Amino acid sequence: MENHRFILQPSDIPHAWYNLAADLPQPIPPHCHPATGDPVGPDDMRPIFPDALIMQEVSTEKWIEIPDAVREKLAIWRPAPLVRAVQLEKHLGTPARIYYKNESVSPAGSHKPNTAVAQAYYNKEAGIERIATETGAGQWGSSLAFACDLFDLQCKVYMVKVSYHQKPYRRSLMNLWGAECIPSPSTDTQAGRAILEKNPETTGSLGISISEAVEDAATHDNTNYALGSVLNHVCTHQTVIGLELKKQMALAEDAPDILIGCAGGGSNMAGLLFPYVKDTMDGHGPRLIAVEPTACPTLTRGKYAYDFGDCIGMAPLACMYTLGHSFVPSGIHAGGLRYHGMAPAVSMLHKMGVLEAQAFHQKETFEAGVLFARTEGICPAPETNHAIRCAIVEALKCKETGEAKCIVFNFSGHGHFDLLSYDKYLAEELEDYELPQEWIERSLAELPKSNIPVPV
Amino acid sequence: MENHRFILQPSDIPHAWYNLAADLPQPIPPHCHPATGDPVGPDDMRPIFPDALIMQEVSTEKWIEIPDAVREKLAIWRPAPLVRAVQLEKHLGTPARIYYKNESVSPAGSHKPNTAVAQAYYNKEAGIERIATETGAGQWGSSLAFACDLFDLQCKVYMVKVSYHQKPYRRSLMNLWGAECIPSPSTDTQAGRAILEKNPETTGSLGISISEAVEDAATHDNTNYALGSVLNHVCTHQTVIGLELKKQMALAEDAPDILIGCAGGGSNMAGLLFPYVKDTMDGHGPRLIAVEPTACPTLTRGKYAYDFGDCIGMAPLACMYTLGHSFVPSGIHAGGLRYHGMAPAVSMLHKMGVLEAQAFHQKETFEAGVLFARTEGICPAPETNHAIRCAIVEALKCKETGEAKCIVFNFSGHGHFDLLSYDKYLAEELEDYELPQEWIERSLAELPKSNIPVPV
Repeated sequence: MENHRFILQPSDIPHAWYNLAADLPQPIPPHCHPATGDPVGPDDMRPIFPDALIMQEVSTEKWIEIPDAVREKLAIWRPAPLVRAVQLEKHLGTPARIYYKNESVSPAGSHKPNTAVAQAYYNKEAGIERIATETGAGQWGSSLAFACDLFDLQCKVYMVKVSYHQKPYRRSLMNLWGAECIPSPSTDTQAGRAILEKNPETTGSLGISISEAVEDAATHDNTNYALGSVLNHVCTHQTVIGLELKKQMALAEDAPDILIGCAGGGSNMAGLLFPYVKDTMDGHGPRLIAVEPTACPTLTRGKYAYDFGDCIGMAPLACMYTLGHSFVPSGIHAGGLRYHGMAPAVSMLHKMGVLEAQAFHQKETFEAGVLFARTEGICPAPETNHAIRCAIVEALKCKETGEAKCIVFNFSGHGHFDLLSYDKYLAEELEDYELPQEWIERSLAELPKSNIPVPV
Repeated sequence: MENHRFILQPSDIPHAWYNLAADLPQPIPPHCHPATGDPVGPDDMRPIFPDALIMQEVSTEKWIEIPDAVREKLAIWRPAPLVRAVQLEKHLGTPARIYYKNESVSPAGSHKPNTAVAQAYYNKEAGIERIATETGAGQWGSSLAFACDLFDLQCKVYMVKVSYHQKPYRRSLMNLWGAECIPSPSTDTQAGRAILEKNPETTGSLGISISEAVEDAATHDNTNYALGSVLNHVCTHQTVIGLELKKQMALAEDAPDILIGCAGGGSNMAGLLFPYVKDTMDGHGPRLIAVEPTACPTLTRGKYAYDFGDCIGMAPLACMYTLGHSFVPSGIHAGGLRYHGMAPAVSMLHKMGVLEAQAFHQKETFEAGVLFARTEGICPAPETNHAIRCAIVEALKCKETGEAKCIVFNFSGHGHFDLLSYDKYLAEELEDYELPQEWIERSLAELPKSNIPVPV
């Protein structure tokens, strides 16, 4: 029996995160204040983040040591398996070798706990007793609830109201792990009350939930805020994925020609790709591909500019690819990819031409996910289906050219809580559409001004 | 960092299943025909099972080789991790060492695919093109759908109607893996039509679904039937669990003093325990404990007798502990433990005094499951919570006596599709009750007659 799963031991969990900022030819542009447009300093972040994370956010050190207490918690599910998708290869009839790094094995079912555990740890170390956050579909909220529980922190999650009612299972997970999860907008914050007064029937939005969580953190002494993607320190925490991958590729006596990740805020892809970026910049690394939905084409049709991190102009400005903070993507099932912006570090790589981007329609991504489930046996998250689609497209190109490339993608999460979306796909109830250029231009016309120039 | 997860490589998957029948002091009593009461021979089973499985069912060979094609499919998720539950130990303040064998890592989320893959393989080898089965809550149906998909077999699942409508997610999984899943009773079989004619509003039962699936298999040339528990060959297929455990215990430089499994039909527990039974019979093995719900106390309050395998007297008689085939357990959330009987091999061990049995109320099992999720991070299936409760009870006994015992339980499945039952527990909506002795006696009064004596 040939071995197709490359399994590491807990002792193989990396001892340090890789910080891409150390290897970039220029600094990642700083975040700016949403009101003044001036660069945000540590003092501005201190009301809602612990010092250790603020330092990581602006660090240019190449390696950041992973505390033993964090490695111990990561060992609950890490290292994550690297699997060669031989049944999928056979089905496609491709000479390519397709591998996936299975991040769905975490208790919350995705890559998100990689950073949740680290953030909970540093907050605990700083004497914080409680963390507030927002969540859309619930991936991040449940991951942070899990991590807070491990470090005996209280956790409050403001969950977008429509998801709170439509996706009860992720809310149940948060409750199981001892977190308080309430529908947002809520009456617990000024921001929430103001919105409910204007529009009592609102179903909420991620922007509103962010505002509530940040207000909660800023107005409670012992409470901080945590974000599940976009920020530099979040991308850094995710690099355990790519660092493990390097060891596993060596076990497989192989090396990637193409690395693929789906990209919403960008962190799961960053985790997979960042440890390979220097090689690619130096001309001898793999092709790097970000995959996004055509319904939210941040890298493929957005603009590189300063924009608000949230939808309502309360969060800091980030220098990134954006569709405009007022852009509202259609209700695709890959909720984790419905973000108007992209992590600044990821955006910079795309701007530099180091990172490619591709966009796919919803139906073709579900088609890929069903094929994956029926060949490899595992049910992927709708977000993950984007990476799978891209891997299949590249593998079929290999079939045409006869090239035996090594393709690796990040299996960012399982679809156990997304099965109703598969039902809809199988019942042919999903519709694709072309996003009109005017819609993007309309929201791009509302970009804010920063006092920092956007790098060319 | 100390290592608490004991991880094997795919090459460590056992090359042979262990057949307990070889080591028992007397033969496992044969199944008998439901109408005549005479022992069932291979010819009786041939209309619905392939020869290879019939031979395994009656084999007394100690080792049965696992075909390479089966090992390859098991390698999609096996070997399953053995984990020491140090956070749980710490919370309990026990000197005991608690380990769990994590069978929830399979694509279908439980131990069931261990036998589903083997059964699908042997049917494929026998030229069968289609398998029919029944499912209650959906664990077995989804596992068989997964396995049939891997071997390119069609799969039809008759799902108890009330579960079909109440548990859409497991049905979605079956559809995703290409199986046809219909609510039972259906109009597709004579058995189904007869019941619908008498009672159009019926919500179905496992007994009815079994009848439909068996009829489907018996009346279609290219179709066989598959059962997910109880039978000898099913228990044999599950022994990969205990065989892997032996290697992992050696890695941990430890040895079990107590082995614990929850028991519905008995197969997950059999898989964990059987490879240790000979040692226990010889006086130098671990204590073996089966855990069941007080709502369905087959081993703790049932009778050792011949009884129908199903609820309506169509399936063969098995010599087993039973509450009577007409016993209807209350609607506890551990659907997989609501079976009136117990695997004949498991029953014999209990009759011999080799296997202990304990029963727990629903609420205390959920309490244990929540504690497990909050210490070890993983959400268990309601069935698994029974094994966890027992492990905790034994660990607390160790705390009293100061003994540092090694306790191992089978983590048979995750609770991703059972979160609404956790909601109910957390909202204090679950009620326990005492099962009246008259109820058990009433159904035991209806036991059928066999022409084979029950061993004393």
